[in-house]
Amino acid sequence: MTEDNVVYIGSKPVMNYVLAVVTQFNNGASEVTIKARGRAISRAVDVAEVTRNRFVAESKVKDIRIATERIASDKGDSNISTMEIVMIK
Amino acid sequence: MTEDNVVYIGSKPVMNYVLAVVTQFNNGASEVTIKARGRAISRAVDVAEVTRNRFVAESKVKDIRIATERIASDKGDSNISTMEIVMIK
Repeated sequence: MTEDNVVYIGSKPVMNYVLAVVTQFNNGASEVTIKARGRAISRAVDVAEVTRNRFVAESKVKDIRIATERIASDKGDSNISTMEIVMIK
Repeated sequence: MTEDNVVYIGSKPVMNYVLAVVTQFNNGASEVTIKARGRAISRAVDVAEVTRNRFVAESKVKDIRIATERIASDKGDSNISTMEIVMIK
């Protein structure tokens, strides 16, 4: 159930993901988790800030977690940073 | 005094900033704050993760804060996301 309330950040414009987060809150979610890896991490912060400042004023950041994931590719393994922003309202 | 233990993340390679953080810990700091704005935020997470995983094993992330700053430019005001990662050891 919690897993339903996850928005994964890719390379689309920030507003696409803001809309996804706002929709989840409007559909009754009390908690939405924004997940990103690598360079999308900056965009994840933008999504959380735009949501909080412009669309869901009663929402706030409950927790931010960072970690490292190991990615296997044809050039060998590499590490990538990950971030999760848990928002509640 | 706390302000001395701040590392600002710019557009240099990650390892430059990791070295700055590690140096502060080695010089006796018990807390180092990594600050970044905009697209440098992803790099700030890399710096924290590389420091923790490879150089200062006893360090950990104490707090992560995100916020929005208003920037005045010749094209008018705009908003930029900011992040602070507080590391302790």
